[in-house]
Amino acid sequence: VKQVKLTVDDYVKGILAGNRMILSRAITLIESNASVHFAMAQEVIQKILPYTGKSMRIGITGVPGAGKSTLIEALGTKLCQQGHKVAVLAVDPSSTVTRGSILGDKTRMEQLSREPNAFIRPSPSGGTLGGLTRKSRETLLLCEAAGYDTILVETVGVGQSETTVRSMVDFFLLVVLTGAGDELQGMKKGVMELADAILVNKADGDNKQRALVTRAEYERILQFLRQATEHWTTHAYTCSAYTGEGIMDFWQNVVKVFMKQGFANGVLKERRKQQTISWVYTMIEEHLHNLFYRCPEIIKSKGEIEEDVINGKLSATLAVQQLIDKFAN
Amino acid sequence: VKQVKLTVDDYVKGILAGNRMILSRAITLIESNASVHFAMAQEVIQKILPYTGKSMRIGITGVPGAGKSTLIEALGTKLCQQGHKVAVLAVDPSSTVTRGSILGDKTRMEQLSREPNAFIRPSPSGGTLGGLTRKSRETLLLCEAAGYDTILVETVGVGQSETTVRSMVDFFLLVVLTGAGDELQGMKKGVMELADAILVNKADGDNKQRALVTRAEYERILQFLRQATEHWTTHAYTCSAYTGEGIMDFWQNVVKVFMKQGFANGVLKERRKQQTISWVYTMIEEHLHNLFYRCPEIIKSKGEIEEDVINGKLSATLAVQQLIDKFAN
Repeated sequence: VKQVKLTVDDYVKGILAGNRMILSRAITLIESNASVHFAMAQEVIQKILPYTGKSMRIGITGVPGAGKSTLIEALGTKLCQQGHKVAVLAVDPSSTVTRGSILGDKTRMEQLSREPNAFIRPSPSGGTLGGLTRKSRETLLLCEAAGYDTILVETVGVGQSETTVRSMVDFFLLVVLTGAGDELQGMKKGVMELADAILVNKADGDNKQRALVTRAEYERILQFLRQATEHWTTHAYTCSAYTGEGIMDFWQNVVKVFMKQGFANGVLKERRKQQTISWVYTMIEEHLHNLFYRCPEIIKSKGEIEEDVINGKLSATLAVQQLIDKFAN
Repeated sequence: VKQVKLTVDDYVKGILAGNRMILSRAITLIESNASVHFAMAQEVIQKILPYTGKSMRIGITGVPGAGKSTLIEALGTKLCQQGHKVAVLAVDPSSTVTRGSILGDKTRMEQLSREPNAFIRPSPSGGTLGGLTRKSRETLLLCEAAGYDTILVETVGVGQSETTVRSMVDFFLLVVLTGAGDELQGMKKGVMELADAILVNKADGDNKQRALVTRAEYERILQFLRQATEHWTTHAYTCSAYTGEGIMDFWQNVVKVFMKQGFANGVLKERRKQQTISWVYTMIEEHLHNLFYRCPEIIKSKGEIEEDVINGKLSATLAVQQLIDKFAN
């Protein structure tokens, strides 16, 4: 069955009406690398911009096996049943290679995917981290315009993906397992410092006591770290994504308190503003980089100049000057 | 007394003859921000390039009070007495503000500064980290051309300065104090992973036993870290810069072994090559950045476009496209 072609207005109206099929197709447009799609997608985004910004933007990270998906399923289903509209997105740079290691398989969130108020979208595959970031941010905006009031952005800790997700959400959650001792040693440096909360998962059955010990260990370490958000102290909590215990308490008493307080004291407004501005400047650096390395003059002379530097025939500073002169002319 | 003006050839001949006064003036030329000096300095560097690359390039970092200066003084004096020519440089981004917090006061290395084979140069002040990096790297090259066979580059852990120094030396040493427990908690993330050796200083008198305990603590943590140099395992050692105990052992059995092995297996040749190439590309990114932000078209429209993005009137991606278009035309 051939799909009917949609105009920019079709997309905009469909998204604003909350049509999931059209939302899906608009995201596909954003994810496309074809320039004609790019231009159209930008028109759509430009038109839906005034309807964005009204959701809670929540990032969720944790090592594979920490139970992120189970947690998102339990939390998302509960929120949908309360009448919320929940979008679940993913940022996974490795999906270029593995073709979608997170959220790739919708059956992993079977219950949530049956909720009419839920929208689940796997990580776009292909392209650079910059491309992935643009696609994810723009997808988030489309979901907001479509009326989703809670956006959960899941990521695995590959490359710079945590920083990327942190740079597009209000609240950033780190999900961990018990047995922190070993895990902490292997944990990627700096991730704890990005988190607004640490949630020790699988606090159920025999594991409950260990989860409390782990929580205390994280609390101890948190004392030594910089805070992720001004006027907010990051703490560790426990929950069980499996039994559901602790999840809604956490949502109510931590996440919602954070959001309310953050909007009241201006921290979140400022964060979103800074996020947008620095996104603009990150994209500019990328474009400059591409302009330079795709410039025919540079492509032609780069190798030779590089050789001369390596062989000590040309100083590094003069090499740079020569290359920049070629580029600027 | 007005100084006689030197020609490029005067500088080159003086440096190659090991004339300390001329070397000093050449470094001042490199550190100058005047464009006429810049051009002349580049000519000098271009001419001395064939005479560079023959020293051991050693970086030394550690928190203030760790005893870096005392260690450098003890080590440098010993090496000079053995007939080596030792240059001591510093990289300190904070010296822009504090006017030379390290090596600023030569009396801090009184004994070493009296050695005819020693050359001590404080950190250049002013400018960006990029400028500081260029000046330090080029100073290192001049010192090599002047016959210094051992270059010690000291840095305090301000901003990115450790990474900067790591990117210009063969061997990187982290000097620490006893009582690692507390210190470790406050240590800047990632610095231990840059080090080819950790030297626990002040292992003397009552402190000796504690130094050994500290050393063991560092050894334990090193097991969990990535190695700084291929085919080399970073270990922790003890010494006393005050009594001199352990210093020459460390030099002989660690640093010199590292250098010999590194040149034999090709790791150091490759490291230096990569350091030079990535320095070129870092400078290019900086130049591109400057070309963009100093472009009159960008200066004119940047503020307005930024406002539109913040106020949701313009999408970030379109804003970038508009700015890049203005720049490219």
